[in-house]
Amino acid sequence: MFAELKQEVFQANLDLVKHGLVIFTWGNVSAIDRVKGLVVIKPSGVSYEIMTIDDMVVLDLEGNILEGRLKPSSDTPTHLALYKAFPNIGGVTHTHSTYATAWAQAGYDIPNIGTTHADYFKDNIPCTRSITKAEIEGDYERETGNVIIERFAGMNPDYTPGVLVDNHGPFTWGKDAYEAVHNAVVLEQVAKMAYITYGINPNPAMNPLLIKKHFDRKHGSNAYYGQKS
Amino acid sequence: MFAELKQEVFQANLDLVKHGLVIFTWGNVSAIDRVKGLVVIKPSGVSYEIMTIDDMVVLDLEGNILEGRLKPSSDTPTHLALYKAFPNIGGVTHTHSTYATAWAQAGYDIPNIGTTHADYFKDNIPCTRSITKAEIEGDYERETGNVIIERFAGMNPDYTPGVLVDNHGPFTWGKDAYEAVHNAVVLEQVAKMAYITYGINPNPAMNPLLIKKHFDRKHGSNAYYGQKS
Amino acid sequence: MFAELKQEVFQANLDLVKHGLVIFTWGNVSAIDRVKGLVVIKPSGVSYEIMTIDDMVVLDLEGNILEGRLKPSSDTPTHLALYKAFPNIGGVTHTHSTYATAWAQAGYDIPNIGTTHADYFKDNIPCTRSITKAEIEGDYERETGNVIIERFAGMNPDYTPGVLVDNHGPFTWGKDAYEAVHNAVVLEQVAKMAYITYGINPNPAMNPLLIKKHFDRKHGSNAYYGQKS
Amino acid sequence: MFAELKQEVFQANLDLVKHGLVIFTWGNVSAIDRVKGLVVIKPSGVSYEIMTIDDMVVLDLEGNILEGRLKPSSDTPTHLALYKAFPNIGGVTHTHSTYATAWAQAGYDIPNIGTTHADYFKDNIPCTRSITKAEIEGDYERETGNVIIERFAGMNPDYTPGVLVDNHGPFTWGKDAYEAVHNAVVLEQVAKMAYITYGINPNPAMNPLLIKKHFDRKHGSNAYYGQKS
Repeated sequence: MFAELKQEVFQANLDLVKHGLVIFTWGNVSAIDRVKGLVVIKPSGVSYEIMTIDDMVVLDLEGNILEGRLKPSSDTPTHLALYKAFPNIGGVTHTHSTYATAWAQAGYDIPNIGTTHADYFKDNIPCTRSITKAEIEGDYERETGNVIIERFAGMNPDYTPGVLVDNHGPFTWGKDAYEAVHNAVVLEQVAKMAYITYGINPNPAMNPLLIKKHFDRKHGSNAYYGQKS
Repeated sequence: MFAELKQEVFQANLDLVKHGLVIFTWGNVSAIDRVKGLVVIKPSGVSYEIMTIDDMVVLDLEGNILEGRLKPSSDTPTHLALYKAFPNIGGVTHTHSTYATAWAQAGYDIPNIGTTHADYFKDNIPCTRSITKAEIEGDYERETGNVIIERFAGMNPDYTPGVLVDNHGPFTWGKDAYEAVHNAVVLEQVAKMAYITYGINPNPAMNPLLIKKHFDRKHGSNAYYGQKS
Repeated sequence: MFAELKQEVFQANLDLVKHGLVIFTWGNVSAIDRVKGLVVIKPSGVSYEIMTIDDMVVLDLEGNILEGRLKPSSDTPTHLALYKAFPNIGGVTHTHSTYATAWAQAGYDIPNIGTTHADYFKDNIPCTRSITKAEIEGDYERETGNVIIERFAGMNPDYTPGVLVDNHGPFTWGKDAYEAVHNAVVLEQVAKMAYITYGINPNPAMNPLLIKKHFDRKHGSNAYYGQKS
Repeated sequence: MFAELKQEVFQANLDLVKHGLVIFTWGNVSAIDRVKGLVVIKPSGVSYEIMTIDDMVVLDLEGNILEGRLKPSSDTPTHLALYKAFPNIGGVTHTHSTYATAWAQAGYDIPNIGTTHADYFKDNIPCTRSITKAEIEGDYERETGNVIIERFAGMNPDYTPGVLVDNHGPFTWGKDAYEAVHNAVVLEQVAKMAYITYGINPNPAMNPLLIKKHFDRKHGSNAYYGQKS
């Protein structure tokens, strides 16, 4: 059952490898069927080289396994928390991609200093606060989701589809699993270009109107980038 | 119609991928037929993986579409402005290549500090001034072209075939689409080597005579690099 | 004889190339059969492109060659010293991988500043002290092993399966040759991300509880990452 | 005629591409037959993709063409000067490889701060002085050779088989064309690791005895690295 969503999640996980965002088992993608209220996610610790479609795990939003022989990704509670809090998203990706993870380890937001960033993310890509002792010792992966949600208070997750978890790494999302992976690729590239930029000029200036212009020409009500679908 | 120029523009766009300068749809190449006064350019937001020759868009210099089912690149007015202002160029390329974009985000010219740079670009690779509110809210992509042209006042675009648009990324040009792409590859490599150089020595010295020598041995009236054509 | 262990060591050496950790002959992997008390290791200075299984060298723990036409890796005495001192390890890897070697040349431990590091290494990845004149002029490669062992006084090599040899490069180990190579890949990636992190923030903060959490969820008695074997 | 030496030079030039040291036509390799007093070198400005063995150019040490339809590399006089000054070398390589060129643009020697460097280069990899107006305006490429030779006064080119030409890029050499390319790969890797090292620690310490040990175990009279030939 759920063949289509499992195919999407399977393929999107392999796309992480194709785009050079993961090595070994360091990443996972999920997608949600909002009508049926179920989520498909990669199994935990399974190598991308041997993984098959049938290894995908199907759960409800409370984490009960509906189908699958394997344990789901250990990050599953983070994914579920995001699906509950962000009603428009259809896919979630987590990686340890090099430059995004470095910004997360630095504990800094990635500043919006160019049109590449602004084409996809309206705001700085935020970094969460440090997780507390109680959160680590509690339901850690669910609390990781909660720390992300807390960070988005007053922000629109549809306009800034990604986050850095402090000392950990990036999560991204989108309308489906493919867009979540697409945004993971963009976040990594934006993180790399920002790192290099600060190596050239420690105080780069950005024009806020340019951010608005680029975001709106791709995503606004009068968007004119790309073809009419 | 226009099969030859469409083939050139199609192939040159794919070369951007081959050389690692673009991901997804982040780049575009055009070429001009000066006799017929028409330009061929990549369609907007179409993936390189599925793009065909027939997707190329043919326009006149005022932007009227002569042939093609798809919308042209959203950067088309920038390309057209450059063709009008720089009479010797036959092809234009725009990318968000990593190191060139980082210099653009830094808002700095790339200094001419080595013979690799001097073999292709006689001057520093200039960065434009910040674009104004009026320009952003007006015909933004045409104004981007105008800001480039303004930056080249007193410079010869044939001797320095590329520019950084502030907070955005590089444009390059050449006698045809292939040379425009070639110069985009060179600009990215020069940008990377300059970044590393400043990481080693914040104040590198360059010999102006060495710039002249290397540029002239490839491009001067007594050029002796390469084979006689 | 020893066909299985030779196959493992042969394959693990080729994996170094696949993962981009070595060029030319700059690396070696060994594995030990604890029951028989013998070690299999790569021959010295043989290119990975022409190396065959039969080129693997079999030695006892005193370095006497039991099988093989070729001289073993010049680093063999370092491998043997580690097998004697660290009773649980089954494989050892040495490379000159780029970022790990740079930290070794810098003479610094790699600080544990992220969950990627903490997933595999409980402590900072330590760098050895500078080797002395007497050690260099004595049995240099064995003394290199001794300097590593000295550095692990009070540390558990099973919890931190890698080290940087000052001014030289990394050694890693694991339960077999494959895990030793796996840890070499992780160490290189962790070294790269730490380098970039310090370029962004010279004083990154790390939560010690997060290190413990991530290490324990993969390696502790209540580990829940991955599948039950 | 000269089929063997032409094959070696042709293959060695292609190896530059395989190792990622050159793009477009940015590099050249030559080799010398000391008995016959003739040199084979790549033609100028010919793409590696279309180059054939028959395009190789054969010259005597005064630069007279003995065989070949094409003009030799514009850097030929530099190669010839090195063959005349360094009697033991059999091959010469020139590239604009990224990190080595950045050190050349910085105008700095690459310090010997690790065993990777010391395995191949006994000294710092020297950078030449800035070339003078008279030298640029005279026989520029031959003077480039002379500036290199001047830099090696008091140094043994067989023990340090490479140099950085100020504001330009690296030259390397070896007993034949293949070893010259091998040393070009090593120089680039050493340059990259030194760059990263200084980003981590601006004042790394090196043990001079360790340099001697590593150089001698590969190249000294009692060398024991690798197999007996």
